[in-house]
Amino acid sequence: MAKTPVLTPRADDFPRWYQELIAKAELADNGPVRGTMVIRPYGYGLWERMQQDMDARIKETGTQNAYFPLLIPQSYLAREADHVEGFAPELAVVTHGGGKELEEPAVVRPTSEMIINDYFSKWVQSYRDLPLLINQWANVVRWELRPRLFLRTTEFLWQEGHTAHATYEEARDFAARIQRHVYADFMENTLAMDVVLGRKTVKERFAGAINTLTLEAMMGDGKALQMGTSHELGQNFAKAFNTQYLSKEGKQELVWQTSWGSTTRMIGALVMMHGDDNGLRVPPRLAPVQAVVLAIKGDDAVLAKVHDIGDRLKAAGVRVHVDDRTDTPFGRRAVDWELKGVPVRIEIGPRDLDSGTAMLARRIPGGKEPVALDALATLLPTVLEEDQALLLRQSRERRESRTAEVSTTEEALEAAAAGGWARIPWSDLGEEGEAKLAEHAVTVRCLVSPDGSVPDSEDAPGNVAVVARAY
Amino acid sequence: MAKTPVLTPRADDFPRWYQELIAKAELADNGPVRGTMVIRPYGYGLWERMQQDMDARIKETGTQNAYFPLLIPQSYLAREADHVEGFAPELAVVTHGGGKELEEPAVVRPTSEMIINDYFSKWVQSYRDLPLLINQWANVVRWELRPRLFLRTTEFLWQEGHTAHATYEEARDFAARIQRHVYADFMENTLAMDVVLGRKTVKERFAGAINTLTLEAMMGDGKALQMGTSHELGQNFAKAFNTQYLSKEGKQELVWQTSWGSTTRMIGALVMMHGDDNGLRVPPRLAPVQAVVLAIKGDDAVLAKVHDIGDRLKAAGVRVHVDDRTDTPFGRRAVDWELKGVPVRIEIGPRDLDSGTAMLARRIPGGKEPVALDALATLLPTVLEEDQALLLRQSRERRESRTAEVSTTEEALEAAAAGGWARIPWSDLGEEGEAKLAEHAVTVRCLVSPDGSVPDSEDAPGNVAVVARAY
Repeated sequence: MAKTPVLTPRADDFPRWYQELIAKAELADNGPVRGTMVIRPYGYGLWERMQQDMDARIKETGTQNAYFPLLIPQSYLAREADHVEGFAPELAVVTHGGGKELEEPAVVRPTSEMIINDYFSKWVQSYRDLPLLINQWANVVRWELRPRLFLRTTEFLWQEGHTAHATYEEARDFAARIQRHVYADFMENTLAMDVVLGRKTVKERFAGAINTLTLEAMMGDGKALQMGTSHELGQNFAKAFNTQYLSKEGKQELVWQTSWGSTTRMIGALVMMHGDDNGLRVPPRLAPVQAVVLAIKGDDAVLAKVHDIGDRLKAAGVRVHVDDRTDTPFGRRAVDWELKGVPVRIEIGPRDLDSGTAMLARRIPGGKEPVALDALATLLPTVLEEDQALLLRQSRERRESRTAEVSTTEEALEAAAAGGWARIPWSDLGEEGEAKLAEHAVTVRCLVSPDGSVPDSEDAPGNVAVVARAY
Repeated sequence: MAKTPVLTPRADDFPRWYQELIAKAELADNGPVRGTMVIRPYGYGLWERMQQDMDARIKETGTQNAYFPLLIPQSYLAREADHVEGFAPELAVVTHGGGKELEEPAVVRPTSEMIINDYFSKWVQSYRDLPLLINQWANVVRWELRPRLFLRTTEFLWQEGHTAHATYEEARDFAARIQRHVYADFMENTLAMDVVLGRKTVKERFAGAINTLTLEAMMGDGKALQMGTSHELGQNFAKAFNTQYLSKEGKQELVWQTSWGSTTRMIGALVMMHGDDNGLRVPPRLAPVQAVVLAIKGDDAVLAKVHDIGDRLKAAGVRVHVDDRTDTPFGRRAVDWELKGVPVRIEIGPRDLDSGTAMLARRIPGGKEPVALDALATLLPTVLEEDQALLLRQSRERRESRTAEVSTTEEALEAAAAGGWARIPWSDLGEEGEAKLAEHAVTVRCLVSPDGSVPDSEDAPGNVAVVARAY
């Protein structure tokens, strides 16, 4: 008897598979206002783990958290010309407050450069106040016409870093440090995701930046997803807000700035990167639940044993959940944990007690085998590290095998149409080629140096454009 | 030479002292949209510590975090009559999104009962889905006409818990558990604050609740501050959203619900509870920085020593900060740490190196004395626990010494006018007396049982009303 698939197979309809997985793994629901989302406890648990990990990395750079208001006077947005042009079409506007029409409407922040710079200009007086390194965890709103859960939502959660430095070089190095030592390290080591680090072309730059650094990942369908960005803002906002400091030499100087962000979109990336036809697969270092111990039947001895194993695994440092809901059929629960992508299931029934073993089901490589109960606590940490490494390896291999080296715009378009990425010398593509790609909804995801590092400039010799369809 | 006071003394002008302290200790600034606030890194550090501590306590009750949208269709608010009446005057309304007027305006959440109940009605189907225990950390907006930083702000941060239960008794017990084992334990043990636990009168109840439990604290000026509330919602929202479950007996039943919240107002409470004329005093268990090690002069040996002491204290489990900014005068830095209320300062100069000692300045009891450098790491944990206990004792003594036992409404008004609280039998006061108090801006903060416990009902014999002016 063939098993009815729990999800539409990816190969049949990737977007539908994505939507079904999010619903059935109880990650999120659509909100009532178009484009908004409800992040359900299991989805939010993933976000909490991401936050904890990233927050520690952000703090290691000397950055401190703060909180700036949600509502920004509409006039603020107009202060930096490129910035307002970039965000105007996406704004949500509050026109009434406390039962009255407001004298000046307020926008719900789409990002906080404007309001944060207003305060930076007050807080920064002397070179002693620099660098000023601030981060906030917050919600932002950008009106979304074609919403998709986690990937493009009208409201999303994110962290946004904003820094001010005395010199161009310091700001440049800090933006690069965030890209490499906060974002890339987190994505590779915790999310088990292969990411390509590069810089955006002028066309793809953040509104108001002089340079945008990016991290791009290949999803299961071969499309690209921008995982995070780190911007050099130059002195654009410093000029707009007159953010100056008195230097050691007694001169008034404008500051140099950065901003950088990563969002709940990373949850969508997790699904599209590691998910398979049976559901999500959560990297063990991220997983809120690394192992679930399931009672197959509601027998007293079995229930006692699952809790005993749960305690022993907890003592061994494993994040464990005991599933003793034996009024729900075992098969349904097993499918549910598979959908949720918990790395390891330990299944215990009456027969296992006799033999002193349990079935160990591994979600990431797949497969099931009996293991001695007494061996579990020492075995599991090793198994989990193996699975973490396997996910990163699979992620890297997919990107490598589905990336074509090409030398013409036409070949780049073919590679993208075939569900992959293309690498093409930037000198062969150029802004003209970039415009032609755009006609086919294909974009330059980033420029990289021949040695794989992040180029110092758009025009650096040998720059390679990484080209793909993207979310 | 008399020292110029850093702050307006509390006895001269308490509100001005409060405002100056918040500015000078760098806790917060006013935002550009009226009533909003910028929480600066030091203030936000206090909030982060509060969040971590409370979040762990909330999770211990089996509650899980989730996230619901900021924007709520305006029509949702109308579903529960008392609720809409309570919140309508405070709403911020989004009328335009993505460059267009919206078909239906959206309100920025003032609280999330409405939107959360919309989802509860979908998620709850069977008795197996209960209890459903959800919390979210979020920002909310309530338009504020007389804003004051942390105490009444148009936008504030909070946690809001929302739960659904099978029976009235379970919901009642859960609301009480939150009041006692989450809120009161946190406030007493971490914030070192004396709180009175009671129930609100009908007049003071949350819009839509059948019972509101509260925690009230006496501030430095004798006024009361509501520190947190936990509501029994009965079946009011269940009826409005038709949230039903199939019982074990196969019958459709409405759920019983609770909601409960605590906010960034607790930072304002911290200031008004523990602050003195020199600034804030932060309870050691809460303090982001428990001890600061100050280099008096920028001498190499001194700088090496402050970092060495910093490392040793860190190893002893103390949250320590090393202040080596010797290009700023020592006196100014000492005043700054005093303003910020860091419990312990360890001051080290060249002479101290010779004697092998440091000056230990204790912010909470006050006073300064030399201590052997080698003794610091063992001494400090004890000192910090002593200081924690002292703050709670001072808080309790203030409330006890400034609470009058009275039997008439007039006497209650006198006690409040004199800057204290009054306790009066509820049978002597009643709703009529409560209305009379209101004419003088005095309110019943809560009802308590004669034995100090929380009454089961408003009419329970012997109920005592705690009466005060409040923030």
